[in-house]
Formats: sequence, C-alpha cells, structure tokens
Amino acid sequence: MSEQDRAHMRHALQLAARGLGRVWPNPAVGCVLVKDGRIVGRGWTQPGGRPHAERRALDQAGAAARGATAYVTLEPCAHHGQTPPCAEGLVACGVARVVSALEDPDTRVAGKGHAILRAAGIEVEVGLLADAARTLNHGFLKRTTQGLPMVTLKLATTLDGRIATASGESRWITGAGSRRAVHLLRMTHDAVMVGSGTALADDPDLTVRDLGAAHQPVRVVVDSGLRHAPDSRLGQTARAHPVWLLHGTGTDNAGWQATGARLLECPMGAGALDLRAGLGLLAAQGITRVFCEGGAGLAAALIRAGLVDDLVIFSAGALIGEEGRAALGPLALGALADAPRLSLVSQTAVGGDVMSHWRFVQV
Amino acid sequence: MSEQDRAHMRHALQLAARGLGRVWPNPAVGCVLVKDGRIVGRGWTQPGGRPHAERRALDQAGAAARGATAYVTLEPCAHHGQTPPCAEGLVACGVARVVSALEDPDTRVAGKGHAILRAAGIEVEVGLLADAARTLNHGFLKRTTQGLPMVTLKLATTLDGRIATASGESRWITGAGSRRAVHLLRMTHDAVMVGSGTALADDPDLTVRDLGAAHQPVRVVVDSGLRHAPDSRLGQTARAHPVWLLHGTGTDNAGWQATGARLLECPMGAGALDLRAGLGLLAAQGITRVFCEGGAGLAAALIRAGLVDDLVIFSAGALIGEEGRAALGPLALGALADAPRLSLVSQTAVGGDVMSHWRFVQV
Repeated sequence: MSEQDRAHMRHALQLAARGLGRVWPNPAVGCVLVKDGRIVGRGWTQPGGRPHAERRALDQAGAAARGATAYVTLEPCAHHGQTPPCAEGLVACGVARVVSALEDPDTRVAGKGHAILRAAGIEVEVGLLADAARTLNHGFLKRTTQGLPMVTLKLATTLDGRIATASGESRWITGAGSRRAVHLLRMTHDAVMVGSGTALADDPDLTVRDLGAAHQPVRVVVDSGLRHAPDSRLGQTARAHPVWLLHGTGTDNAGWQATGARLLECPMGAGALDLRAGLGLLAAQGITRVFCEGGAGLAAALIRAGLVDDLVIFSAGALIGEEGRAALGPLALGALADAPRLSLVSQTAVGGDVMSHWRFVQV
Repeated sequence: MSEQDRAHMRHALQLAARGLGRVWPNPAVGCVLVKDGRIVGRGWTQPGGRPHAERRALDQAGAAARGATAYVTLEPCAHHGQTPPCAEGLVACGVARVVSALEDPDTRVAGKGHAILRAAGIEVEVGLLADAARTLNHGFLKRTTQGLPMVTLKLATTLDGRIATASGESRWITGAGSRRAVHLLRMTHDAVMVGSGTALADDPDLTVRDLGAAHQPVRVVVDSGLRHAPDSRLGQTARAHPVWLLHGTGTDNAGWQATGARLLECPMGAGALDLRAGLGLLAAQGITRVFCEGGAGLAAALIRAGLVDDLVIFSAGALIGEEGRAALGPLALGALADAPRLSLVSQTAVGGDVMSHWRFVQV
C-alpha cells in the first residue's frame, strides 16, 4: 500500500478518536472516502454509537462515493441492527475499494463484513496501520474478546511519589493545567471509577467540567460495603448523570436505590470485591474504557490483578518525603523481577507539571 | 544588542559548558572573538582552570584579534595569578569591543576587569544572556557569594517513587541508558557524594566509566562515624582518584588515613553531621558543583536544610508498591504549603526511562 493510503488511514484514525468515551458499547470508528485523490467524505461513529462512521461518510459523499476508495479503521459491520449493515451500504453506493485496518472480532462480524464487500466485487485490503487501530480501540477489542473493559489508571503525585501529606492534605499537589487534562481524560473514557475511601474522603462528583461536554461518563464507585453516603454529591446527582455502585453481598441498598443510582452486586474474593468480576459486570453493561482515579488501595489491587492497561501520571514539581501518603498501596512483590513494567507512550509538560503516559507491558 | 550578538554569546555559553566539572575552583568560561562577522577565535577554560578562555581565543586569533569583538560569559579576570590577567590580554591584543554576560562577584575581580577594558578605550557592554550565564556558573557563583557548592541531587525511581524493594533489591530499576547518563552527570560535577549507608550497602566506586574521561570527580562520603571500610572499593582506589570523607568528631581515622583518602572533620548538629558546614568544607577546598547520589536519608537531610539546587530524576517504567523503599526520607513538613517546590528544566526519554531535570524554587 502507498504512502497516500497510509496518510488517509491516519486521517481516519484521527477521526475515529473523536468518538472515544461517547460511543460505548460500540467501537469508535473513522472512515475517509477518497476519489481521484480528493477526500469526498469523512465520518466517525456518532455519540451513542450511531450513525456509524461509514454511513456518515457515504451520506457526505453522495454520488461521489461511486468508484471511491473507503479507508475504515475497523471492518464494516455485517449485521442488521437498528440500521442496515455498513458493508451493504458501501456496496450500494458503488465504492470500488476498501482499505480496512482491522478485522472486527465481534462474532456478528468477524470477517463477514469484508466477505460481503469481496462478494460484490470490491477490492478489499486488510491490515493497514493495524497496530494503531488496535491501540485506539483497545477497550472495545478487550471487551469483545475478554469480557473486560480497558482500564486507564491515573496518579497525581509529587516527584517522590506521594499523593498527600501525612495528615491527608492533597489540595493541590498538581496545577490547574493538570486538573483540566484530567477532565479531558474523563471525557475520552466511558466510565470514571474510584474506590469508596476516595469517595468518602473527597466527596467528588467525577463529572467533566468546563469543556462544553454534552455527554458525561458513567461514574462508578467500588464500594463493597456501600459505605459511601447516598446524600453525597454522587448520590444527589445520580438522576442527572449515571452513578453505578459495585457493591458486595448483604449490603443495605435502599438508600442508594432511592437516589436513582444503579447497584451492581459483585462477588467477593479474599475479603474484598473480586475486581475482575466487577469489571466484567461493567463490560456486560457495555463499558469499554474505564478511567480509574484511585485511591492507592484500589489502584494497587487492580495492578495486582493484572487489570490495568495504561497509566497516566501527573508529576508535580514538589516533594513531600516518606511520611507522605504513597500513590500506590502494596503490590506484594516477591522480587524486583516481578515488578510490573511499563513502556513510555508519551510525555508532555502541562503547566508546571509533567504528564506521562505509560502502557503496561503484558507478560 | 543585536541578534548576532546574542548568537555569539550563546555560542560562548556552549563553549563554557565544556569546562563544567573540570575547572574547579575556577569558573567555566567561554570566549568567542568575532571580526567583520567572522569567528576568528574560540576558547573555554581548560581542565584544571588554566589557560583561561580569553587567552585561548586570543592565541587562536593571533593578529586577527585587533579590532575584533570579544564575547565572554563572565567578566575577564583582573588579578595577577599564575598568568597575567585576561583583561590586560584583551587590551594588549587590540580588541575593540567586549560583550560580557556577567560581572564576576569574586572580590579580586568585581568590576575591575571591565574597568581595565574601559580605561583602555574598549567599548564594554555587560549583561547579555546574564540569566543563562548565572545558571551555567551557579556553582562558582554560589561558592563565591555563599561559601557553598551547588548541589544536584539524583534520584532513580520507579513510577511510584521507590528505589528498591522491601528487601533492598535495586539492581536494576533503571536501564543501561540512564546509568550511562548518570556517568555523564558525574563528569560535569566537581564531586560525587553519597551517604555512608549507600556506601556500605553498594560498595560503589563512583567513578566516571566508559566515557573516555581523562579526569575524575572527587568522591565524597558523608560518614559521621567513619563507618565505611578502608578496604572498600573507594579505599582501595583513593590513591588513583581522590576520595574525601566528611566525618564527625572523635572518629578513628588511622585506617582511612592509610588509604590516601582525605579526611575532613565536620561539626555535628542534632546527632548528625552539620551538612551546611560539611558542604562549606568542600567549598573551602574549591568544590563548586556536587552531584549527590543518595541515599534517601542524606537526600532528605540536604533538602530539609535547603542545600539542594537541582534535582535530576530517572523514572523507570516499573512499579514496586508501598512496601518498597522510598526515594526520600522524612521531610518533616507541617503542611502541604511547606512542601519544597521545583520548576521543570527539561525532560528526555532515555532508553525506556524518562530523565527529568527540576530546579528548586527559592522561597
């Protein structure tokens, strides 16, 4: 495939990224239609998951779609849902060639989309920028293949890895720029999640603020004993934007039920919630991307269970010393060789802080 | 001053930086001679502190120095030492104009260099890129004005601020690229310093290796009770490259004296060495730049005493959890507002790690 093909696919991937956090349980797909070297249509999965990217691009192109090449970041769907499948739409509009980054592992698609195109005489090439497409839709792919959402863990620490003083003072370690970047990250995830300790200590509302967001992520509290108060900010706003509580067995649910929050009962394991099962419950509801904002105990438990995919650290130019509260709870390592390892994705100066994005190396 | 002037001064600053770590007790100076828009001479302070930058540049220029402009990163010296003063050299060679970044606070100079030039009818302009020149020679300026060396603290940590597992395992958290970068940092400092706990635990030799270094920094151990063993690597190599021990009162010095190490007796304060006094002893010996490589206790004590200027952190893509050993000991903060604050100087990916350079904000 040519450098032009790669450029158009990169463009389609950029369009796809616009949907992240707003299209669950669907994948975030991008589509670019090119005819005679000119872009005649662009589309991405719309909020809520429909219309699909291909439909948007085809509608934009109109008659110009005939004979065009379609660049799609994921195999076009093949199944009749609320709308006719995109593979059939591409055929009907007379597209001549489809360049697709990735086969969709969803069993309702899984090669059938590409097969429909080929059967209609369309030239189909699969695999261009497949790694980038896999990274972009890691949440959707993980949910589809493993029944689990992708988890991004956020830490906001001093340069010596502390998140609060010994007395618990933590406002503010990082600057306003970092806090704004956190809201952007919330916006690109389907759900924001904290442990009950953090919920009790901070009474957060976990919404996306000051970014003109028309859509809010689901707010999840991991709260085995339902300790968080129904008259908290989360309880008081649960009818405006979804609040889900992952709780254990035998809890008193009446107070939270009255708030409009959704209660998800999760099996217990070793004295705490079985987090793998809990994330499985979120995935079963359609959640593909979870942004975990702590605290230190939940973060460590997720890491110990191998459930975290990405780590975003906001490092503030400050030092607290060893009396301060650690960013992570115990990881129970036997030896240094057992320490989780991560590879650097990117690093950016944000105001006076540094935001660094790391990805867990799968072992 | 013109953009040309600024470019030549930046060039002179780059030349000056070559001397860092090798010219103590002298400042690291750079000099560029420009005539009719062409560079006719370049010089920087040579290892050991002589010849000076101006002398080197004048010798290189020869007769072309007549009528030239000299860009110098520090006021030319005015005092007769082993060689005639540079200010007189510039006059003798017929330089027409001198652009100087900074007045030298050394009382033997302190404006006298610039005065000699002006008295000879040379046009003198002072202050171009003064901040950059001050940063470059911070160690020399701090020693001259405060009787203390500049201290750069190095930390090599996991992303959660740990330097070893609970059992003390620390090899290796950071990668080979970071360890090489540490040797480069050692090379640009006059002295490398560790606490006795680190010396005992690691038996380091603290030399610059694999970089073709013709010069080694002084190796300093802060060892109030002279606990480190004379038959350690440092003891065994003390005649090849200098080893200095900052120790307290009433220690048994005979073993270390036999190694050829230099013993510096330092007053005690609150059950530990008075670190300000200890660093003052190093400055009195001519040391302008100290690179402290830990451990956590010494690092925290230096920070508590306000003695650290720069912090270089090597962050490895790894996590150890709260059982691990903290990068910093106690800072005894009353409130978060008392936490030392630092501003970002630079950040670089080094192999799989991130090296970030921070500067303490003086309050």
